[in-house]
Amino acid sequence: MKVVRSTDELRAELAGLRVDGSSIGFVPTMGALHEGHLSLVRAAATRCQSVVVSIFVNPLQFGPHEDLAFYPRDEETDLDLLGSENVDVVFIPTVETMYPDDRATSVSVGPLGSVVEGSSRPGHFNGVATVVAKLFNLVQPSVAFFGQKDAQQLAVIRRMVADLSFPVEIVGCPTVREADGLALSSRNMFLDEEARGAAISLWRALEAGREAWDGDRDRDSVEKVMWEALIAGGVDPDYAHVVDPDTFEAPSPDGGVLLVVAAKAGDTRLIDNLLLEPGDG
Amino acid sequence: MKVVRSTDELRAELAGLRVDGSSIGFVPTMGALHEGHLSLVRAAATRCQSVVVSIFVNPLQFGPHEDLAFYPRDEETDLDLLGSENVDVVFIPTVETMYPDDRATSVSVGPLGSVVEGSSRPGHFNGVATVVAKLFNLVQPSVAFFGQKDAQQLAVIRRMVADLSFPVEIVGCPTVREADGLALSSRNMFLDEEARGAAISLWRALEAGREAWDGDRDRDSVEKVMWEALIAGGVDPDYAHVVDPDTFEAPSPDGGVLLVVAAKAGDTRLIDNLLLEPGDG
Repeated sequence: MKVVRSTDELRAELAGLRVDGSSIGFVPTMGALHEGHLSLVRAAATRCQSVVVSIFVNPLQFGPHEDLAFYPRDEETDLDLLGSENVDVVFIPTVETMYPDDRATSVSVGPLGSVVEGSSRPGHFNGVATVVAKLFNLVQPSVAFFGQKDAQQLAVIRRMVADLSFPVEIVGCPTVREADGLALSSRNMFLDEEARGAAISLWRALEAGREAWDGDRDRDSVEKVMWEALIAGGVDPDYAHVVDPDTFEAPSPDGGVLLVVAAKAGDTRLIDNLLLEPGDG
Repeated sequence: MKVVRSTDELRAELAGLRVDGSSIGFVPTMGALHEGHLSLVRAAATRCQSVVVSIFVNPLQFGPHEDLAFYPRDEETDLDLLGSENVDVVFIPTVETMYPDDRATSVSVGPLGSVVEGSSRPGHFNGVATVVAKLFNLVQPSVAFFGQKDAQQLAVIRRMVADLSFPVEIVGCPTVREADGLALSSRNMFLDEEARGAAISLWRALEAGREAWDGDRDRDSVEKVMWEALIAGGVDPDYAHVVDPDTFEAPSPDGGVLLVVAAKAGDTRLIDNLLLEPGDG
């Protein structure tokens, strides 16, 4: 496993991997790796001849009042974890490498980027689309792997790849959960015992939402059920929606259905989702 | 020379060209080809093993009151011209192929896209950046060739390629001119005799600007000289500026210097430019 930090080093390593039709699987991450990330790495290793992982806490996708400064960083542990997997190259650029002072270009995916999670985090998905476009151009992978945990991010990337014809196949991988159902997230390490207890209510709200949907398929009442489950579980809800998994607008009669929730457990903002009926993605 | 219209056909043809390290030169055009375009094709053929030309009148880069509907289209003549050059593949997609109904992604290059020509044509350079990003992903060229005639477009593309790390080298080629100095443009065919006579004043204004710059290097007085030369020559000026060729802001003491003019000759809007001192691009 080779660790590279500059784009020149990356290019040199990739040249060695890109031999006659050999496929490169790519897993972009912000580090603070957990079993969710490792499941993406394993999916890449199963599917592709080589695996490239990036670790970059992307400032463009954090708002001015968000937790960029506090986002967990632990490169040593990350590299230990990746060293036990089938990884060829780990790319760890600095902010200056990714974003020289005079950079100005950004990628927007339109309305999909500004609803639901994008409404709570203005500019977040433009930051995601921009960094992923750049990473795709740097790594030029055949296949890239993203967690279904960040469902709207996955939809944003599928939208961008389709619209701009990036020659990359996008694979979404199932959310990895704790035994009690809590979705793995790098931010879970911020949860104290009380917040950890309350955090399970995101998953419980989604399960309650599924049950309600199976009952009357009424969007408003399902959203109310989820909202109340979040409150009852001791977290501070941001949203609880029933959406189309491709557009994140209201589901259409023949499209997919996704439940999405966001809430604060203590000071830590968490998101989760549950796919009831698949979309086109 | 193979003519392809779908992305699947394009991919199939490119697979045949992309053999062990062979380089692909790409010339994106909007058709209505003239010697300026052909000079790009020849530069590509000299530099690269294979040459791909695209012909696509990109609706995204036309404003609501601009000449999209009237932009000249003559595919038969274009293919005749390209058939006499060293061209491997001509890609002629429809609007539906490039932009399916649900597309939403756009690429913005920030301030560079909204000054000078971008100020006269809001959204124009986002449309250019978006289509070029998509064409780069479809063709995956090693080198792409653009005319210096559209100087701000060239700067926008260099900016985008640098910021998003597209693995494409950008080559700018000199403007091709008529014997009297008029820059070749597909829109020149709209000029009647009187407008053709007046159109030469864009070049005359640039020459007068160069002379004035060589005198006192004073931005305001050079812009005034160019503006007056446009008026005197019988065209209706839109702008006459002295700019930095990379940023299109005011030139800095140690940066490049570019003269840019835009004016209407009769009903036809024309642009031209003259590089006095090169920038970084």
